[in-house]
Amino acid sequence: MTATIKLGQLAEFLGATLRGDPEKVITGLATLQEAGPAQLSFLANPQYRKYLAESRAAALLLKPADADGFAGDALIVPDPYLAYARISHLFDPKPKSASGIHPSAVIAADAVVDPTASVGPFVVVESAARIGPGVTLGAHCFIGARCEIGEGGWLAPRVTLYHDVRIGKRVVIQSGAVLGGEGFGFAKEKGIWQKIAQIGGVTVGDDVEIGVNTAIDRGALADTVIGNGVKLDNQIQIAHNVQIGDHTAMAACVGISGSTRIGKHCMLAGGVGLVGHIDICDNVFLTGMTMVTHSITEPGAYSSGTAMQPAAEWRKSAARIRQLDDIARRLRQLEKRVGDVTPDGNASSDG
Amino acid sequence: MTATIKLGQLAEFLGATLRGDPEKVITGLATLQEAGPAQLSFLANPQYRKYLAESRAAALLLKPADADGFAGDALIVPDPYLAYARISHLFDPKPKSASGIHPSAVIAADAVVDPTASVGPFVVVESAARIGPGVTLGAHCFIGARCEIGEGGWLAPRVTLYHDVRIGKRVVIQSGAVLGGEGFGFAKEKGIWQKIAQIGGVTVGDDVEIGVNTAIDRGALADTVIGNGVKLDNQIQIAHNVQIGDHTAMAACVGISGSTRIGKHCMLAGGVGLVGHIDICDNVFLTGMTMVTHSITEPGAYSSGTAMQPAAEWRKSAARIRQLDDIARRLRQLEKRVGDVTPDGNASSDG
Amino acid sequence: MTATIKLGQLAEFLGATLRGDPEKVITGLATLQEAGPAQLSFLANPQYRKYLAESRAAALLLKPADADGFAGDALIVPDPYLAYARISHLFDPKPKSASGIHPSAVIAADAVVDPTASVGPFVVVESAARIGPGVTLGAHCFIGARCEIGEGGWLAPRVTLYHDVRIGKRVVIQSGAVLGGEGFGFAKEKGIWQKIAQIGGVTVGDDVEIGVNTAIDRGALADTVIGNGVKLDNQIQIAHNVQIGDHTAMAACVGISGSTRIGKHCMLAGGVGLVGHIDICDNVFLTGMTMVTHSITEPGAYSSGTAMQPAAEWRKSAARIRQLDDIARRLRQLEKRVGDVTPDGNASSDG
Repeated sequence: MTATIKLGQLAEFLGATLRGDPEKVITGLATLQEAGPAQLSFLANPQYRKYLAESRAAALLLKPADADGFAGDALIVPDPYLAYARISHLFDPKPKSASGIHPSAVIAADAVVDPTASVGPFVVVESAARIGPGVTLGAHCFIGARCEIGEGGWLAPRVTLYHDVRIGKRVVIQSGAVLGGEGFGFAKEKGIWQKIAQIGGVTVGDDVEIGVNTAIDRGALADTVIGNGVKLDNQIQIAHNVQIGDHTAMAACVGISGSTRIGKHCMLAGGVGLVGHIDICDNVFLTGMTMVTHSITEPGAYSSGTAMQPAAEWRKSAARIRQLDDIARRLRQLEKRVGDVTPDGNASSDG
Repeated sequence: MTATIKLGQLAEFLGATLRGDPEKVITGLATLQEAGPAQLSFLANPQYRKYLAESRAAALLLKPADADGFAGDALIVPDPYLAYARISHLFDPKPKSASGIHPSAVIAADAVVDPTASVGPFVVVESAARIGPGVTLGAHCFIGARCEIGEGGWLAPRVTLYHDVRIGKRVVIQSGAVLGGEGFGFAKEKGIWQKIAQIGGVTVGDDVEIGVNTAIDRGALADTVIGNGVKLDNQIQIAHNVQIGDHTAMAACVGISGSTRIGKHCMLAGGVGLVGHIDICDNVFLTGMTMVTHSITEPGAYSSGTAMQPAAEWRKSAARIRQLDDIARRLRQLEKRVGDVTPDGNASSDG
Repeated sequence: MTATIKLGQLAEFLGATLRGDPEKVITGLATLQEAGPAQLSFLANPQYRKYLAESRAAALLLKPADADGFAGDALIVPDPYLAYARISHLFDPKPKSASGIHPSAVIAADAVVDPTASVGPFVVVESAARIGPGVTLGAHCFIGARCEIGEGGWLAPRVTLYHDVRIGKRVVIQSGAVLGGEGFGFAKEKGIWQKIAQIGGVTVGDDVEIGVNTAIDRGALADTVIGNGVKLDNQIQIAHNVQIGDHTAMAACVGISGSTRIGKHCMLAGGVGLVGHIDICDNVFLTGMTMVTHSITEPGAYSSGTAMQPAAEWRKSAARIRQLDDIARRLRQLEKRVGDVTPDGNASSDG
């Protein structure tokens, strides 16, 4: 569980400038305030600079500018947060699974599992699926017919892929995620919903991460497509035939309706909702719980919703919002009337 | 995986008027723009009429009016979208499970599994449960004590039914759905929450569809009830003792609080939330992310929320909303004062 | 399934004053309107007092004041709802699992499972995990390396704990919940997201309840912490390093972003969202779907959002909200101008 790495080794791993004892042993990572004398810490956010002096950490990851004012041991790097990201994996207590297929797993005769893959207890791999080199399938995973999982993929316990889900390399999928569920497709016939078979699949690029209990539906005709480097947090809903551009990230509880296309390098904060059949261009940032009802063609930040108030005040605001059209028309009328009696008739000049 | 059906067979299946070669072989379905020369397509949305001329599809499902202006092969039907829905199942690559019980499944001695049912690997069926004819239980399903699943049900891998969940005929349940979870029932005693046992069950009608990771809690005393033909998308939350009327459909991420009743033929768009203990009448449409805090007694469309703006403008709007009560009172005061100095004292006549 | 308990026994169990036949047999609980002649009911909400006279219930749990006006059998208690909560467990049809480990379960050689615990089919318990006395692990549960589950815990079928999740006593976790998933931690490097290993764990106090498909992510460095007596409903998202104070309750579909701290005895209604890195003090109540973007330092109720309207009216309101900054500035200008022509220049005196 506990890694032990020397400070000099970390400097070499990062290409960092070492200031201090290369033989000092580091056993873990912690925040500036919580780090003990065998733990490494880092300063990334300037507002935590005040904790520098009191930190008991064995050493710190610091920018050159911050290192000047710090007396202790340090690894000096251009981007301490990125350096922390890189070495975090060295201290990760996540168990590594051994290669091989657990005897309880049920693997179809014509499925292909690379000998370097690890298949956990109670896993099911169906007909003609292909599991690539170094892939981990946690316990209780279900891999449907004809699925493909590229090299180095890591599926936590209990991930479900329906049939015809194609996943790139180094993809991480957390527990409870479901890829390839049958999208919400129905045709109405005299008030009754008739199901439309969802005959497309799902295509996921390389280096994608998919969070806990996130759902990505299969396409109705063509595939639902998740680009390279996309990061999806927990409890997200991606409907059929959505397309997500490379390196877009979404925080938890986002919902994207069918056939909507999202560009590259977008960021969707938590709880954002998008209607179907719209296009979001590259480099759009949507703040938390924004409701998006039409396409966005200009990069930038967008929001909806109202600011929180004490509930008693909020009730007044909410009532007034329902009067807003009346208020606006009364204001316009008043402007006209005041225009009649004042020297300058241009009542709404600054509007 | 690939179905091959002749155009004449499709015409017969649909009762369509065939224009073209009945021997032409169709191997799949695709959109107008993507269909290749062995694929069938359809025109349902008039805005796609522009793609008709260029479509490479083997044949199209068309309304009579659209068929007149199209030179290629066609199946002429009154409702092309509904016709597409019907034949989509002929081309569905979803694997069909063979009848029988996988040897790894754990079935209680007093459970009854119809011999025509299919029970996948690692399924658990508990005491006195009844699995009807033609039912499919995907891998990792858990069917609690005394549950009943009617004829023709299809449960994807990894569906969980707690005890006393009764499901009608032809019900489809997607992966990760949980029916019969213990609803959020607690009584407060001096600031401490005391759990209330949830002793009711869940009753689900015929022809219901329940999406990925959707949760339907068991009733506190009586059952939670889902009517016939109800369609629930992914990631939906249905609390204890909710009642949903026949043929109501809900898009993803809807949340319904306890004991709320929803009528028939309603449509709830994505992300809608309803408080508990309210009644929604038949034929109500709630637009995306609407917050419903009181009963609705008139059919029609309802909404809440604000329209998206660029974030910088949104911040101004959000600040102004908190001033709205003040703005409204100042407007009223101004109207009174202008009434004093203008000939006509009826300042808010059009409000 | 059906408990049979005499009215006198229930009186003794509750310490209630019995009015009626102590030998009367009670077989279940139901609402005032639905209770049959062998069922017990209760009156907690005064608006249901009108159903008292017509109730067919065998007996009622009543406050002394309500008992005076009721002729039938009664158990008289200070808090009927709390009394109902207590006896509900006597009538709970939830199957009780026998102690012991199902032969299909896969238990690591160095895991410790108390002999009084119950481990269901297809459960996986990994290295060095410790399962306490009287714990139930439902079918398909996955308990990661070094996890600890305290005495009396009850995990429904299909609960997943990643490694290093420590759970107190008498904790209830519903199906599909995932504790210890890898939080959404990425550092950006030239537009590409680099994953940060999440090396903390999750600590859950005593008497906690965690709902269906709820996700609680592991900490990035230190643990994510859930206090004693916390009740989390279904479909909730708790991000890494969130801290939740004792006896706080959250309804379904709440999302809490990373490192946010919530006080004790708070209540979050359904669909509430909180941004990261903020503090909510004790005794805060957030109404449904409120968006919280900054810390709250005063106890009380808070809200955001707009009230529902018919969609046609809502469109007007939504359009006007985008004009609000303009409306406010025009009002201010008008006040100034009216101030110029009326005797009293203090146009916005009541604002």
